[in-house]
Amino acid sequence: MHALIIAGGIPPKKNLLEKEMALAQLYIGADSGGYVYLGYGHKPDIVVGDLDSFVYTRHKGIKVLELPDQETNDLEKSLEYALEKGAKSVCILGAIGKRFDHSLKNLSVLLRYLDRFEDIRFKDNYGELFLVRSPYTPKQAVGTGISFFPVLEPVKNFCSKGVKYPLNDSVLAMGVQDGTSNEITSKNAIIHFDGILGVYIIKSIQ
Amino acid sequence: MHALIIAGGIPPKKNLLEKEMALAQLYIGADSGGYVYLGYGHKPDIVVGDLDSFVYTRHKGIKVLELPDQETNDLEKSLEYALEKGAKSVCILGAIGKRFDHSLKNLSVLLRYLDRFEDIRFKDNYGELFLVRSPYTPKQAVGTGISFFPVLEPVKNFCSKGVKYPLNDSVLAMGVQDGTSNEITSKNAIIHFDGILGVYIIKSIQ
Repeated sequence: MHALIIAGGIPPKKNLLEKEMALAQLYIGADSGGYVYLGYGHKPDIVVGDLDSFVYTRHKGIKVLELPDQETNDLEKSLEYALEKGAKSVCILGAIGKRFDHSLKNLSVLLRYLDRFEDIRFKDNYGELFLVRSPYTPKQAVGTGISFFPVLEPVKNFCSKGVKYPLNDSVLAMGVQDGTSNEITSKNAIIHFDGILGVYIIKSIQ
Repeated sequence: MHALIIAGGIPPKKNLLEKEMALAQLYIGADSGGYVYLGYGHKPDIVVGDLDSFVYTRHKGIKVLELPDQETNDLEKSLEYALEKGAKSVCILGAIGKRFDHSLKNLSVLLRYLDRFEDIRFKDNYGELFLVRSPYTPKQAVGTGISFFPVLEPVKNFCSKGVKYPLNDSVLAMGVQDGTSNEITSKNAIIHFDGILGVYIIKSIQ
């Protein structure tokens, strides 16, 4: 089962939301993310979180799960709910783009849940973001913009083939060597490395 | 001399821009960041970048520096210009919030330029972000929201005092231990650690 979560970052455009709703069987609003469904005339199956933002008394038809503990954020609470309901994969909208500390926290959550879903990724109006282990074979078309970045630690022994700016036996490290703004140039592109690699695929939603 | 740079991320609100303009002696637009000054009725001293976004032929009064090389991004080109002009400190608006790979790239640039300015920081409509070495003494008022995060590598031996959720001899690492959403509770707050620490101070611009 595939779940859709909307968190409290920059909301998706309507056509991104509806495209993702068509792919999912469970619609979760992470606290204020619940308003995004409602704002576009849709209804989440449930709103999960500490509910410091979502005023559910004004939306009586909406099921809510209020979890006040402050040890986990609303995205983590929503992911736990998705797992309990049997979700194998999840797409998260609104994970990034407002407060930068929240974006980084959600990136940290993505890493923490990487092995608990068959597929877990953020999507926004500019592209999609996910984490991979080596070797990674991009599935996107030739010509697609792609960025690579380290997450937990510098990514070592990074070798990329079939991209516009290939690297060989390099280290991707913040402040040292970046892997942003590359492009897939071959359908046989492949990336090898040590560690966990962040991938951002550029596909602007018009 | 203090410089102000506007990059191509989410634009600052008008009152944030004008507050920062009042503090700076040099106004730089990093490519499309030049439009932000113009959009609010102000004029940058110069627009610097590869100029793939800023159509300067439509703004004949604006001085531009076109640097087409693709090895550095528009923010790096702007920071080099600021250094050449003698800037000792710099505030960067619009560094984050649109494409997440651009935000991370700019964070990487912040790290790269940390030692070349007396002060270098991002500000946005939600707060400000900068990097520090140990020991770090927050200068903000008691009650201010503050988040800590690792940048290049996990931050080790992290000890925080005078904050709501103090830690002792901990490791801040993506996916493992987060330092987000804390609060200053003492004017003698102090943080010790090994490595380079990212700090995000929460101060929403209304």
